[in-house]
Amino acid sequence: MHFEFPQKVLFKHCDPAGIVFYPRFFEMINDAVEFMFSDLIGWPFDKMHPTHGAPTAEFKVRFVSPCFHGDHLKLQITLNRLGGSSLSLTTRAFKGDQLCFEADQVLVCVGSTGRPNRWPDDVRHTITTIMEAST
Amino acid sequence: MHFEFPQKVLFKHCDPAGIVFYPRFFEMINDAVEFMFSDLIGWPFDKMHPTHGAPTAEFKVRFVSPCFHGDHLKLQITLNRLGGSSLSLTTRAFKGDQLCFEADQVLVCVGSTGRPNRWPDDVRHTITTIMEAST
Amino acid sequence: MHFEFPQKVLFKHCDPAGIVFYPRFFEMINDAVEFMFSDLIGWPFDKMHPTHGAPTAEFKVRFVSPCFHGDHLKLQITLNRLGGSSLSLTTRAFKGDQLCFEADQVLVCVGSTGRPNRWPDDVRHTITTIMEAST
Amino acid sequence: MHFEFPQKVLFKHCDPAGIVFYPRFFEMINDAVEFMFSDLIGWPFDKMHPTHGAPTAEFKVRFVSPCFHGDHLKLQITLNRLGGSSLSLTTRAFKGDQLCFEADQVLVCVGSTGRPNRWPDDVRHTITTIMEAST
Repeated sequence: MHFEFPQKVLFKHCDPAGIVFYPRFFEMINDAVEFMFSDLIGWPFDKMHPTHGAPTAEFKVRFVSPCFHGDHLKLQITLNRLGGSSLSLTTRAFKGDQLCFEADQVLVCVGSTGRPNRWPDDVRHTITTIMEAST
Repeated sequence: MHFEFPQKVLFKHCDPAGIVFYPRFFEMINDAVEFMFSDLIGWPFDKMHPTHGAPTAEFKVRFVSPCFHGDHLKLQITLNRLGGSSLSLTTRAFKGDQLCFEADQVLVCVGSTGRPNRWPDDVRHTITTIMEAST
Repeated sequence: MHFEFPQKVLFKHCDPAGIVFYPRFFEMINDAVEFMFSDLIGWPFDKMHPTHGAPTAEFKVRFVSPCFHGDHLKLQITLNRLGGSSLSLTTRAFKGDQLCFEADQVLVCVGSTGRPNRWPDDVRHTITTIMEAST
Repeated sequence: MHFEFPQKVLFKHCDPAGIVFYPRFFEMINDAVEFMFSDLIGWPFDKMHPTHGAPTAEFKVRFVSPCFHGDHLKLQITLNRLGGSSLSLTTRAFKGDQLCFEADQVLVCVGSTGRPNRWPDDVRHTITTIMEAST
């Protein structure tokens, strides 16, 4: 695991059934990834744009147990594989020891035209170092 | 294909890169599924609650081409398989003939406790009829 | 009243209390204003940007009666006053004859730098014509 | 000023113009008020529901200067007046010394039926003490 992001379940996340409305989980994942890029990788999204971007190409998600208003979640991101212009990662959300959801995601580094673009060398170096350090 | 839902890409859906922010795609999918339940299956979410619910257990999504502010999308839902308490479906979004994203989703019918619950017989009958009619 | 926008209250709008979460009302207002600009005034937001914008400078809102999942609302926009670079309007949401909320809003036309910019002449002409026609 | 809430402007808050989409400001305000109730007043929203609620009856907002992706905001809440079942407060958002927006809001304590309900005595006592302490 390479990055942890705390997330309290707030009123705005919850639906009439009193649990998190699933599109809000994707906002949480996006926030966690955004903070990982700024605080761990050192390439904040607001600096990345407008010359580059990192849109998501794929998601595979399992929602394992519901999350309720007031729950304290931990989102844990594991970097899986760095490709030429892609990055595979998994975000797992826990409430205590209970797994709430698990999301496999593929990001793609793009240039200003929106076409895939090789990760900049320094970013590639940083990500590789992070991944090797935790092996 | 069993249900079609038109969706114009609005200002609120788009991010600083000028394309749809992906959590908004999940809101679109949820809206399409909600209208399918009310307009095609005849069991509106607002009637379903609070005795039942239909949370999502799994998603597998491929984002194929970006969507821009002002685009006119069609979300097309195909019902794949009806289980005891599950329903598998695929939502494909098109801009003209261009596939924008494709989402495989598994819904689970739950009771008021949030535990899986067999689909009510009349709902099961309706879904089965819809699926057979289009084979 | 110059423009009407139908809005069904969907699952995504509602909170654990089963009523619309108020920030979603502002998304509804933004949608209604966006459709008014495209369908009535003929200057869609996606054409307006990036040379111009129409951010909101002020809001004064009264929430009169709660809206529930499944409610069918009508948002009615009245244009009040066109200034050099401002536009004052009121959006009232009704469920049948019941007023749900009432929002006074001031928009400002801005240029690409974000500074106030006089409304383009053809847009000014269109808005003036709409306002005079309904007097 | 009675409560301060830090808020970084994230990718999800921003629109194609690169600034915060105003409905997201209302989500920020709601988050700040929610944390004030849990951390300062000691009556968390998730405990308040379902016997009570605190919906918003009125808003008066001035958006003074735009907020950009990556900005570090401080939301400062001032409690203005405690009524029988109402609470008036003002939220001001600052970027450094620059005022970004200012929102006057009236909350109403309601019971499970959604009708106004006198603030519980202990909550009333706490709010009064907080307001007097800072005079």
